Parts: sequence; C-alpha cells; structure tokens
Amino acid sequence: MTEPLRPGQTIGILGGGQLGRMLAVAASRLGLHVHVYEPGAGCPAAEVATRTFTAAYDDTAALTEFAQSVDVVTYEFENIPTAALDVIEALRPIRPGRRALATSQDRLTEKAFLRDLGLATAPFANVESAEDMAAAVDEIGAPAILKTRRMGYDGKGQARLKTTDDAADALAAMNGAPAILEGFVVFSHEVSVIGARGLDGAVACFDPGENVHEDGILRTTTVPARLTASQRTDAVLLAARILTALDYVGVLGVELFVTETGLIVNEIAPRVHNSGHWTQNGCQIDQFEQHIRAVAGWPLGDGSRHSDVVMENLIGADMDRVPEIAKSGAALHLYGKAEVKPGRKMGHVNRIVQGS
Amino acid sequence: MTEPLRPGQTIGILGGGQLGRMLAVAASRLGLHVHVYEPGAGCPAAEVATRTFTAAYDDTAALTEFAQSVDVVTYEFENIPTAALDVIEALRPIRPGRRALATSQDRLTEKAFLRDLGLATAPFANVESAEDMAAAVDEIGAPAILKTRRMGYDGKGQARLKTTDDAADALAAMNGAPAILEGFVVFSHEVSVIGARGLDGAVACFDPGENVHEDGILRTTTVPARLTASQRTDAVLLAARILTALDYVGVLGVELFVTETGLIVNEIAPRVHNSGHWTQNGCQIDQFEQHIRAVAGWPLGDGSRHSDVVMENLIGADMDRVPEIAKSGAALHLYGKAEVKPGRKMGHVNRIVQGS
Repeated sequence: MTEPLRPGQTIGILGGGQLGRMLAVAASRLGLHVHVYEPGAGCPAAEVATRTFTAAYDDTAALTEFAQSVDVVTYEFENIPTAALDVIEALRPIRPGRRALATSQDRLTEKAFLRDLGLATAPFANVESAEDMAAAVDEIGAPAILKTRRMGYDGKGQARLKTTDDAADALAAMNGAPAILEGFVVFSHEVSVIGARGLDGAVACFDPGENVHEDGILRTTTVPARLTASQRTDAVLLAARILTALDYVGVLGVELFVTETGLIVNEIAPRVHNSGHWTQNGCQIDQFEQHIRAVAGWPLGDGSRHSDVVMENLIGADMDRVPEIAKSGAALHLYGKAEVKPGRKMGHVNRIVQGS
Repeated sequence: MTEPLRPGQTIGILGGGQLGRMLAVAASRLGLHVHVYEPGAGCPAAEVATRTFTAAYDDTAALTEFAQSVDVVTYEFENIPTAALDVIEALRPIRPGRRALATSQDRLTEKAFLRDLGLATAPFANVESAEDMAAAVDEIGAPAILKTRRMGYDGKGQARLKTTDDAADALAAMNGAPAILEGFVVFSHEVSVIGARGLDGAVACFDPGENVHEDGILRTTTVPARLTASQRTDAVLLAARILTALDYVGVLGVELFVTETGLIVNEIAPRVHNSGHWTQNGCQIDQFEQHIRAVAGWPLGDGSRHSDVVMENLIGADMDRVPEIAKSGAALHLYGKAEVKPGRKMGHVNRIVQGS
C-alpha cells in the first residue's frame, strides 16, 4: 500500500498510553479515524479514539479483528511481542517497519547497527554468561553499566558497576536475561533529535532539544539545545542517516551524548519521543502529526521551530502543582490517568520562553 | 458549583459538530473527560469524546442521564430548545448561562440588549405582521434585510429588500415566523473579537480577526485585522462590556462592521466561533482551551498572538484540495465528516504568514 490514506480511513495504534493519546488527537485533526489496541482497561488513548480493542498481545482473534478494522498499523512503544507483529503484518502494513523494531528491541542489535553505520557509541560487549561478563569487564573496565538487552526503559533492568568488584552482583541482578555491558561515557550534556521520514523517503528533523534526567526519567527538554552550529548539523545528519538506513517511515527519537570529541549515540526509539513534546507548542506541525502524516503516506509537514520552549514532565506528585501551572498561562498537557503513582508520567507543561 | 473541575471530572457538551470536536480535544489536553449529547449519529465530536449520548433534545430521560453523568454542561450552538435546558439546569450548571443563550437566541432581544448597553447596531424593527412590516419599512427604508428572529445561521432564514417593493415577498419568505427588519450598514470590512470570561470575572480577548464571507458563509479570517489602534481598543473593550453585562462564563464571538463612524455590532454568538479557529496556530492557548478553562472554573490561559495567520474554511468540494494543502506544510484541521455536501464546512487550514 503506497497510496496516501484518505480522510475517513483508519490508523491502528498498538499501545494506549499518553503517546497513543497524543497520536490519536493528531490523527483526528487530519480527519483520520484511530483504533487503539491495549491490554489495560481505561487507557489514556481510549478517550480520544474511535474504537478501542482491550485485549492481550497473545489474543490472535482480537489482533486479527483489530488489523482487519484498520488500514495501516503503527505503535507507541517498541516492546511489542514478535508473534503479535506477525499476525498483524500478514494483514496490514506496519509503519515504522519490522527492521526498526527488531533493531531497537535489542540493545546489542541496536549498538551493532549504529557502529556498522559508522556512528560513535559507548563501548559495549554482549553478556550472556559469567564467562562473557569476565571478558566484558576485562575489555571495558569500570565504571560501566550492565543493561538487559530487551524490555528496559526509564532506568529499569540496569545495574551499575562502580568498580570491577561489582561485576558478580550486577550479573545476578539481570536474573539470567541476556545483557550488554556498556562503558561509561564522559559527556557534558544529553541532547536528542526527533527525526521523521516519509513514505516517499523525504526526511525532516526537528531542532535538537537538551534533556535533563532525574532518577532515570526525563525531567525537562529545552530548545534550543546548547550545541555549536557544527554539532547541530552533525546531530541532524546522523539522525537522517539512521532513518534512511532503516528505510524508516514515521518519527524516530535519537538520544545523543555531547562529548569533547563529538556526539555519541546513546539510544534510538522507533516512535514519538518524550523529548519531542515541546514541538506541540514550538512548531506549526508537532511530532505527533508528523508521525501520523508519515504513517498515512502523506507528505511531511513544516516542523520548523517558531519559539524557544522548555518542556517539563509532570511526574507523580507534580500533579499537585497543576492549579498553579494552570494559573501561569503555560501550555498544560495532561494524560487523563486516573491514578497518581510515584515515577508515573502524568502530563507535561510547555513554556514558551521567547519567540525566535 | 464554584470550585474548579479537577482532572478526571467531566464536561458535557450539547452538540457534536466540529466545534464540539475541537472543544473535546482541548478538554482532553487538560485531563478532563467529555460527554457529548447529539441527536445525529456518527457526529464529528463522538470520535474524540469519552462518551456520546445519541438522543433527541426532547428526550427527557436521555437529557437527565447525560446531565447526571457530567459535572458541568456547555454547548457548541445557541439554538438549544428551552425545555432541554430546563431539564439540564435543574441538575447541573450550564456555562455560559441562560441569559447569554436567551439573548442570542432571539435577534430582537440581542439587538435590544446591545442598544441598551450603549453599543451601535444597525437600525432594526420587530416584524410579526403585515402592519409591523409596513411600519418597519417606513422607519428603516431600503435596502434592508428581513431575518427570522430565531434559528438563522450561515445566511439561512433571510430575505433581502433591494427596494421597498420587495417587502411583501420578504415577509412571505418568513413563513409567519417572527422576524426583524435590519437597515443596511455601509461598512468597509467585517472583523470579529473572540472574548473569554472566567468564573472569577477575569476577561481576556484574542486579537481581532478580519473576516471575508462568500454566499453568507465565512471564507477567511486574517490576523491582524485592518484596524487603527483606537478601533482595536474599542473592539476589545466593547467585547469585554458584553461579557461582563451577561455575567458570562466561556468564549463569546462578536462580529463587528468597521464603518467611517466607528464599529457597529453585527451579532454575538455565545460559543467558540469559526472566526476564532486561527487561534489554534497563532496562540499558545486557543479559543477552545480558553472556553474549556472558563467552563471548568480554571484560570484563563495566555491567548496572546505569536504569529500572523490566515484561516481559510474548507467548504464542500474544497476537500479536493486537501492533498495539495497537505503538501504545502500549512496546518490542516479536518472535521471527520463522512459526506461532502455543497456549503458544508469540512475543515479549515491555518497558514502562518510570519512571526510577529
């Protein structure tokens, strides 16, 4: 299917969290219907979707009905079981494609892909056994960080090695899951590029944002990021190279460490990205609409930045600050989650700092 | 009820057209649920609402269930039957209030209200009989326009008098409905002010836009409008005076004729207004969120204009131009209406002309 979707056709979204919710709103703006597939009941995206399938990812009948009810399928998270993707792909195109998912679902595959593209990454080694771990520690040393190859996010599935003496404890913390040992990178700050590639191969990147994390969770993204002109060009060009190498369709997030010797790729996410939320109030076309346009086979929109923005995540008890933020006149975006939990992303706020 | 709604509470919207749809999206952004009440099936707002009641405005049981399911009720159109409002108001607050609805539902009441506020209007006279018509024509002369007092919109329910000889035909065209004869105003152009008033009495107006109509339907709104500094101040002050006189809560549209002797009020609409759609891409907080904030008892947001914008309505066969507009990078907003009809508003496009 290479024809663009017509208004009235339907995009299926796997996952019903806040990213699915904001994708659904963007699709509605273009006159497209959205069907959401999500195992959990009462998910944030259900409220703004035409239809929601509440079923598990191993429910072949539900997956089949979902796929048959839509024209193209996309997703808001990368850890979708392979078997579910197989069921869907037999019926409808999945965008971004399987290669992007396979690459980003496994930290080892991802790092190898980036290295083969000629991009700089932290030193890394595969760890599936105590012997692997010993060899990896010999090669990489400490400090280092051991991460499960699959299913990690927001700092979960990770163990730090302050010294090589921590190796055994770190390995035990993986509970036998295949892992990757990553060397420590000395960097001044982290930036990310949100890139988009259309079905026609056109690439458009948003201006890089500068990220600050707290407890492994993104706290703020500020645009413009502190980057020299040549670093900014490098960041955008390497994102474009990744998009093209993956024959990618949609929006991709690329996290980068800024070091004295250049940019080092931390990780990629084959989806709209928390560090791109500022685009909702800094650009005419935001990352959510850009993703929907790409997935729908539409031309990409104008994502140039019209304002300087600071995006702040509202996490857990930050919800107590909503009345005060509402008063400030800043642009508030809440996700409609019923329960506040520590560490849970409940919303975000975009503050326009000045026109640019 | 004067406490602000908390995230997770529910706003009821009477009417499920494009205005209801865009209000629902704004409410979702603030973490509020939306229940829509609309007699027609498959309405544009249903897709982005938590729940939709498909029932007639004389269905007391459905109106009761709807009102009981929400915390506050608003509306996207002013011609709601009084009996339906009575059912709802016994259960939940209606914002904007009944006075604003009663005033704007009847052209004669509206004109009298404006005149009593000391604002300039076209000359007008009540016409309920042939005798009234003769007296009105004597007083106002021709050219003039005879309009039904109730239920007119987009040029419907109107008959022009080029000369006084057209009086009998015009009266016959009203089919016995009470009408109002309005004198012709010589004006250079039309502007509108979208004003908002919070539950706390705070007033905030968007920058006036300049409107161009075709066949009685709004075609484009351009900001900034051609107005002198003092005209701009007058426009905003008179909108504020109307909002305060009505003890209004929510967004109100005020259409104004620009004449050599000053601004003349054409009509008011107690709701978000087509001529305010440019705010979606010209302001940090748009008219839809401003309305939801007011109705929810929240503080108004920052509606200052960051860009010059031209809003163009996509009417009927304009939908054929969607692929070309999508390519232009402009901000497209489609309403998800299944059927294209001549004269039907299908969407709009906002073009940022330059930052300001």
